Amino acid sequence: MSQTESDTRNIRLTIAYDGTNYVGWQVQPNGRSVQSVVETAIRKLTGTEARLLVAGRTDSGVHALGQVANFATTCTIPCDNIVSGLQNFLPADVVIRDAVEVPADFHSTYSAKRKRYRYAIHNTHITNPFLRNYAYHYRQPLDAAAMHAAGQELLGTHDFRCFESHFPNKATSVRTVMELTVARQTQTPIWTEMLEYSSMMEDGNAVGDFIWIDIVADGFLYNMVRAIAGTLVNVGRGVWTADTVAQIVANQDRSQAGDTAPPQGLYLVRVDYK
Amino acid sequence: MSQTESDTRNIRLTIAYDGTNYVGWQVQPNGRSVQSVVETAIRKLTGTEARLLVAGRTDSGVHALGQVANFATTCTIPCDNIVSGLQNFLPADVVIRDAVEVPADFHSTYSAKRKRYRYAIHNTHITNPFLRNYAYHYRQPLDAAAMHAAGQELLGTHDFRCFESHFPNKATSVRTVMELTVARQTQTPIWTEMLEYSSMMEDGNAVGDFIWIDIVADGFLYNMVRAIAGTLVNVGRGVWTADTVAQIVANQDRSQAGDTAPPQGLYLVRVDYK
Repeated sequence: MSQTESDTRNIRLTIAYDGTNYVGWQVQPNGRSVQSVVETAIRKLTGTEARLLVAGRTDSGVHALGQVANFATTCTIPCDNIVSGLQNFLPADVVIRDAVEVPADFHSTYSAKRKRYRYAIHNTHITNPFLRNYAYHYRQPLDAAAMHAAGQELLGTHDFRCFESHFPNKATSVRTVMELTVARQTQTPIWTEMLEYSSMMEDGNAVGDFIWIDIVADGFLYNMVRAIAGTLVNVGRGVWTADTVAQIVANQDRSQAGDTAPPQGLYLVRVDYK
Repeated sequence: MSQTESDTRNIRLTIAYDGTNYVGWQVQPNGRSVQSVVETAIRKLTGTEARLLVAGRTDSGVHALGQVANFATTCTIPCDNIVSGLQNFLPADVVIRDAVEVPADFHSTYSAKRKRYRYAIHNTHITNPFLRNYAYHYRQPLDAAAMHAAGQELLGTHDFRCFESHFPNKATSVRTVMELTVARQTQTPIWTEMLEYSSMMEDGNAVGDFIWIDIVADGFLYNMVRAIAGTLVNVGRGVWTADTVAQIVANQDRSQAGDTAPPQGLYLVRVDYK
């Protein structure tokens, strides 16, 4: 190994961001991307250009609690100082949670073993101005139990091209879903100001107004979670059944599945590695 | 009473808004105000110009859960339809919660009996990208009990010019504070995505990370709640005591009180009328 190679470190970042004001993760011709603001911060901190490899290329308006990206650098800054140093050059809606030196062969995309996404639905007739960028507001009541039951049809290894936008994006559209739960958050807390907001409504309540769709898979096709969310909403409103969902998967036809649900409800929660 | 006068209705609106993207309630030469977007919606709905009278002129970045404003109109649209009709012409961060026809002498500003404000502090070293516009992030631990105890010095009727920006704004700076509570929200829920975010941090927690300052008074001077928040933060970090706060009020000198805390933590919660 040459001196140069041995001096090159592979740094893995865990990043949280509010995707509202971004064109998405990936650098685009127009508009500000999360990738570009983080790469700019790296350049300012280390003095050299770096290119980030990422676990999930989130779309415009999609959020991340635990996005993962790595970059090669010859800088000698300790990892703790990379966290605070990058943060100095980042806007408040992008937060570096962690920086770790990893082996040279670690690749955020290809080393990922599984990813967890959450899709949040605000299921009430009450419009909450504070949630417009953080959940999909769906006014008619949804049957979360029916959505959960139908979601179980997606467990296991399937060709999921029925949920893929712009097929084919990938060499294969076969993926394995390890977990899919849909639950109304009857006990679960929400941001207090919003609770106060709703509790002041005569006919309003807030706790129980959220439905989460949590999905863990070894990988996801483009727009897959949002297409699954749109499909399960059709189950929740009573238009489709679990059998419909099974048939949609079997037929491998995107046009039979539900609409792509809006981006603001989607969160990349975490990525696990081998 | 002339036919024209009897045909004029006085409509009271209750309005919630996310103040992040506004220059504040009041129409300004530059930038979009909440007042202007609501007045525009009224004009589009009724076909005539209207001028809103408001309970509290919130500043840029300050939020409202229950702002109150009224306007005179000769339109005959039923109140329920005013709510839905205005909403059609409003952006998603301004929500009309309620519209009621009130007596001709009702005035949102002068008829107000008391107002409730909340100031929210996110008191943790963890930076949360989803809260940047919705709470004051204060990293060092604050003693909420000491803040509460000191806050009791403000109860009752005092000349509060020590907390007034640009004194004198009003004919009198005497106000009566009916309630002031400071409490760490140990049990209280927060918006679930944010909880998930913090609970994923190895050293992180979220529940208990919030401090609320709740204040009810018969009226507030300009920046009064934010100056009280800045003052109580100095108590919470151990620099000042309850005696300091009592002395600040007694001395009637703005320069002795704490800094004006940032706007994004402030919520106009509700306004009560006679």
